[in-house]
Amino acid sequence: MTTQELSNGNCPDILERNISAQSGVVWFFGMPGSGKSTMASSLREALTKHGNWVSFLDGDQVRKRLNRDLGFSEADRTENLRRAAEIARLMAMAGSLVIVSFITPLESNRQMVREILEDHNYCECFVKCSLGTCEMRDPKGLYAKARKGEIANMTGIDAPFEVSETSEIIVDTENQPQPDCMAHLLRSLEEKGLISIG
Amino acid sequence: MTTQELSNGNCPDILERNISAQSGVVWFFGMPGSGKSTMASSLREALTKHGNWVSFLDGDQVRKRLNRDLGFSEADRTENLRRAAEIARLMAMAGSLVIVSFITPLESNRQMVREILEDHNYCECFVKCSLGTCEMRDPKGLYAKARKGEIANMTGIDAPFEVSETSEIIVDTENQPQPDCMAHLLRSLEEKGLISIG
Repeated sequence: MTTQELSNGNCPDILERNISAQSGVVWFFGMPGSGKSTMASSLREALTKHGNWVSFLDGDQVRKRLNRDLGFSEADRTENLRRAAEIARLMAMAGSLVIVSFITPLESNRQMVREILEDHNYCECFVKCSLGTCEMRDPKGLYAKARKGEIANMTGIDAPFEVSETSEIIVDTENQPQPDCMAHLLRSLEEKGLISIG
Repeated sequence: MTTQELSNGNCPDILERNISAQSGVVWFFGMPGSGKSTMASSLREALTKHGNWVSFLDGDQVRKRLNRDLGFSEADRTENLRRAAEIARLMAMAGSLVIVSFITPLESNRQMVREILEDHNYCECFVKCSLGTCEMRDPKGLYAKARKGEIANMTGIDAPFEVSETSEIIVDTENQPQPDCMAHLLRSLEEKGLISIG
C-alpha cells in the first residue's frame, strides 16, 4: 500500500460513509492463516450494513455441504473451485455482489476461475502473507497437525501454493494492520467500479 | 383453483400492484412440458420489476455448466438435485428469493430437497399437467425423440414421475389459463408469507 492510497482516508472514516455495491465477484485467495476469511467477513459486514445484497462463499462451508463428495486430491480441489466459480456466477447474474474466500493455490486454478467469471465484474484479491507468519498464526491448528504428519495435502507444507504478483488487488496482512488493509481494499474496489463510496 | 381464490383478483390486476419478496425458495417441479419454466419465468419477472432480489435456478441451465459432470442415471439425477438445493440454500441465506425449476420426479427427491431447505422459507410448487398434454405440447421435441428411442431416461416415458397430492401449492396448467395460474401462485405465496402484495 502506498502513502497516496492511505491518504485517501482511513478505514473507520470510510465505513461511516454510504457504500453501495454493484453485482460482481470479489475472490479472496491466499494460504490458510493469511487472513482471507477475516478480510472477506469485514467486507461483507461493511456492505450489508448499507443494505447491499451480498452473498458469501467460504471454502470450509462449501466443502461441508455442497461439495461434501470431494476430497483434497488435485483433481478434487480443481472441481471444488470450478463449482464455487459457477455458483458465484449464478449469484452475480442474479444481481448480488459475491464475496468468495478459497485458498485457490495454483495460478491454473485462478485462470480457470477467471475464465468462468470474467464477464461478471470479476476481481481477484490476493491476501498476501508469508508461510512463516501463517504458520505462527495457525488459527485452526492445521499447520501443527501437518508438521506432525497428522494431515496430508496441507497447502504450504506438502501441497503447493503459488504466490501471485498479478492480482488486481493485493492486501498485505503481514505488513499492514487490518484497518489499513480494509481501507486499501475498499478504495481498490471503488476504483474498479464494484462499489461506490458516498 | 377455487372460485374464492379467483375472486381475490385476477393476475393483470395483481401485477400492477407492488410486490415485495422475502428471502426463501420457491421450488417448481413437474414433467417436461408441464409449464414449470413458464411459471418460474413469469414469477421472476413479476418480482424483479418491483426491485426484489430474485435468483433463478433452471435445470437445463445448471446441467450445462455447474453440473456438467452428471448424467441421467438415478444417482446422478439425485446428485443434480442435491447440489441445486444446496445452492438455493446459499442464495436464500444471502437474502434472495430463489426460484427453482427442476423436474424433481420422485417423492424421495422432493423429501431430500425439503430437508435441505426446510429452515429457509421453503415452498414446493407442483406444476400439474397430464402426460398426454405434456407430450402434445412437447416444447423441446423430447417426447417425440424418446418415443422413437433416440433418447433414454425420459421422464414420463422410460423414467418415472410421481404425481404429488401434498405440495403446498399446486398449479394446474392443463385446466387453467396461465393468468389464472399466476394469480393463484401469487396469492398462495402471499398466504405463506413469501411475498406481500401492496
